[in-house]
Amino acid sequence: MNNSIIKYILGQVLKFEAVLMLLPCIVAIIYTESEGLCYLITALVCGAFGVIMTAKKPENFVIYLKEGCIATSLSWIFLSFFGCVPFMLTGEIPHLADALFETISGFTTTGASILSDVESLSYTSIFWRSFTHWIGGMGVLVFLLAIIPLSGGSNINLMRAESPGPSVGKLVPKIKYTARLLYIIYFGLTIVEIVLLLLGKMPVFDAITTSFGTAGTGGFGIKNDSLAGYSSYIQWIVTIFMILFGVNFNAFYFILFSRFKKAFAMEEVRYYFIIIFTSIAVIFFNIYSSIKNVADALLHSSFQVASIITTTGYSTVDFDLWPQTSKTILVMLMFIGACAGSTGGGIKVSRFVIMIKTIIKELNSYIHPKSIKKIKMDGKPVEHEVVRAINVYFITFMIIFSVSIFAISFEDKDLITNFTAVTATINNIGPGLGMVGPTCNFGHFNVFSKFVLMFDMLAGRLELFPLLILFHPTAWKDMIEKKIKYSKM
Amino acid sequence: MNNSIIKYILGQVLKFEAVLMLLPCIVAIIYTESEGLCYLITALVCGAFGVIMTAKKPENFVIYLKEGCIATSLSWIFLSFFGCVPFMLTGEIPHLADALFETISGFTTTGASILSDVESLSYTSIFWRSFTHWIGGMGVLVFLLAIIPLSGGSNINLMRAESPGPSVGKLVPKIKYTARLLYIIYFGLTIVEIVLLLLGKMPVFDAITTSFGTAGTGGFGIKNDSLAGYSSYIQWIVTIFMILFGVNFNAFYFILFSRFKKAFAMEEVRYYFIIIFTSIAVIFFNIYSSIKNVADALLHSSFQVASIITTTGYSTVDFDLWPQTSKTILVMLMFIGACAGSTGGGIKVSRFVIMIKTIIKELNSYIHPKSIKKIKMDGKPVEHEVVRAINVYFITFMIIFSVSIFAISFEDKDLITNFTAVTATINNIGPGLGMVGPTCNFGHFNVFSKFVLMFDMLAGRLELFPLLILFHPTAWKDMIEKKIKYSKM
Repeated sequence: MNNSIIKYILGQVLKFEAVLMLLPCIVAIIYTESEGLCYLITALVCGAFGVIMTAKKPENFVIYLKEGCIATSLSWIFLSFFGCVPFMLTGEIPHLADALFETISGFTTTGASILSDVESLSYTSIFWRSFTHWIGGMGVLVFLLAIIPLSGGSNINLMRAESPGPSVGKLVPKIKYTARLLYIIYFGLTIVEIVLLLLGKMPVFDAITTSFGTAGTGGFGIKNDSLAGYSSYIQWIVTIFMILFGVNFNAFYFILFSRFKKAFAMEEVRYYFIIIFTSIAVIFFNIYSSIKNVADALLHSSFQVASIITTTGYSTVDFDLWPQTSKTILVMLMFIGACAGSTGGGIKVSRFVIMIKTIIKELNSYIHPKSIKKIKMDGKPVEHEVVRAINVYFITFMIIFSVSIFAISFEDKDLITNFTAVTATINNIGPGLGMVGPTCNFGHFNVFSKFVLMFDMLAGRLELFPLLILFHPTAWKDMIEKKIKYSKM
Repeated sequence: MNNSIIKYILGQVLKFEAVLMLLPCIVAIIYTESEGLCYLITALVCGAFGVIMTAKKPENFVIYLKEGCIATSLSWIFLSFFGCVPFMLTGEIPHLADALFETISGFTTTGASILSDVESLSYTSIFWRSFTHWIGGMGVLVFLLAIIPLSGGSNINLMRAESPGPSVGKLVPKIKYTARLLYIIYFGLTIVEIVLLLLGKMPVFDAITTSFGTAGTGGFGIKNDSLAGYSSYIQWIVTIFMILFGVNFNAFYFILFSRFKKAFAMEEVRYYFIIIFTSIAVIFFNIYSSIKNVADALLHSSFQVASIITTTGYSTVDFDLWPQTSKTILVMLMFIGACAGSTGGGIKVSRFVIMIKTIIKELNSYIHPKSIKKIKMDGKPVEHEVVRAINVYFITFMIIFSVSIFAISFEDKDLITNFTAVTATINNIGPGLGMVGPTCNFGHFNVFSKFVLMFDMLAGRLELFPLLILFHPTAWKDMIEKKIKYSKM
């Protein structure tokens, strides 16, 4: 195993984080908050580590799938550990488990919070908290790939480990340019949202942080009532942008280069919109009888559907009070999630589309046992290997899911709370139902349960296997053996 | 499509049911109950239909997979329709939806009841209700195969459609003898249980009906409190026999022929016992603090674990009042289910073993991308096709599961009730949690929800695809086209 490249990548990630942590320092200067000092100190320490770790360039830049996975998982863990330090230094979130939970929730774009009073935080910390969503949304390694010359190696393995969805498409032949293009689209859309929110008379600070949360499909609210206090215009803008950030970014790429036909032909994107509109329609009729106002019912149903399917997790109402049918739809959407290649989480629409096609194929094989049709997506046959990987993904997901519910059951909280707490974290959503509903938070869990849920958030964001690899005995054996071998030389 | 063979098989099933319905008539004579007349009338009508449908022997005895599935699904539906008639005629369950629900629940060995007062039924009806479990446990077509000369055709397709588990093993080269052997083991074990229960001073009627429910892993109690009122000895005997009937019958076959080593080497059976003992241990410690009596805590944990994993559904306590960890384990066991090739339901232990091996294999492929090891079970490599079928089965299961929860959500019952109602029916268990807990029943659902749950019970018992085929447009097109073609001749 190529240990030196892993160390090198981790160092780059830390240097990257140190630079990003200067942004909250600027916020601190603007609002003249002393908390900025904590961020500056952390940035300096983080940067120093980064410099030391990248001092010696690795001899070999080849990254195999195993190294790609380990580097990615460790990057996210390092990122979160350093990212949570300022919360502890400022004393705003004094305990490690809480601060780490909040930071992992931020970077993984989950948006599950342990805070009961967000508004008591300093502007600096609120900014950093929302900014972690934006950083985590597109992925840190994708960013590294866009700017750092890791050439010579098979970088696709890094991207594969971090990117959401069953298959990684290169938009352009070079990974580097693909990564850059993705970031340009991401950046552009975020700016447009900020501008549109400002036009709705939202304060600048609110517009920026809310857009960070939307872009990363994160969902940390900056107010205690999430987005309930803002105008309908602002809520509609956020609804639309949540839906946009849940679209496969390839579609935007096609639109950017005026290949509209290709963008609208994407099967996943079409099903994504069909699911959204159907869900909004059913929920609208389901809640209309109690709300009795067409505009409000439409806004609330649209906002919550958009927020949940894209796994953002903002809320404008307490949907835990809605009728069962609406709640059931929302729970189902939690699992479906957004499109692959978007910033959203969940199992992903494309996986479900392929799984349902697999079922239809199986049924057909009972009727015509000799037919050997391949499953098609976007008109092209889906490779057998992709179908297999999706099946295994789904099974692994359900097993981690069940074991997590069991693990947190020792606290003796009700099944709905445990079930939706795991659902909301592994799918990177944020709020669930019961004691983790939209008006509640995750602060009441004990340290053990918090670590289980942190694992789920990371597993969900990194699409399970890159994180599971860390628990594979051989992965570490290789690393240690290498170390011994080196030290003997 | 070979329509005439399907008609012929359905006719045989009805003749078979007519004969079986004479048993409750005997019970009616013993207890001098007038209800017996209703059973006699139904038996005569049912028999008459059977005779008419089998009057003309089909020219062609070939049964392909498609015909096998359709014949099996329709058999179970016909069986249930005729089986529910006496309940309506006696006026004990006047409504069709209720009577059909109770009968499907019986034949599919679910044991979910719509009755709030079981003890008010006549002995005749209680007997028939429990007897449906025994009939359904081993399967009606397996019985047909054991006695009727369907030779010349590929009977394995009939057996495959009805037998639980990922693959159908022939114990002996001839299907006919395999089926007979299975029934001999089934019959023998039932007799042993009846005798042991009689030794525990259980009344004869109770011993017979309780054994029917155990053997089929059904779970219809004949008392309102299920088995809570009986002695510990009786509860322990039922516990042991529930576990035995959840074992893969191949193991008994090996034991019968003194091939003990082979019986104990069966991986599925070993994992089945590991899961049982682990679950009992955890639940024991979880409930001990409130029960404070070693013998009681051990009996209750063992009984409930045995009842749930084998998908029987008898109860001795209201486990809905247990701590969350115990309830979570029970819900997980509901999905795992018993061994393949047993009378139990659920997803089956062997499927889970293979799925977990698939995950481990996938993880290994990240570490050693070039290794191509096959998954092994009982020391033999598992065919790729079997693994694929299991994956598809699991996905189909979860999708039917989710859609069913959505379908019954319109009644606005709480999520726990809806979730466990579907869990308890699709896995053929019986009781769930909340409003379908061990002390409750399914009578409160409306007609639409009842039909959804009936579908789930049949889908679970027939392992999804044979029933889904009935909804495949081509299946019917073929049948109708054939009819038109014949009538033109």
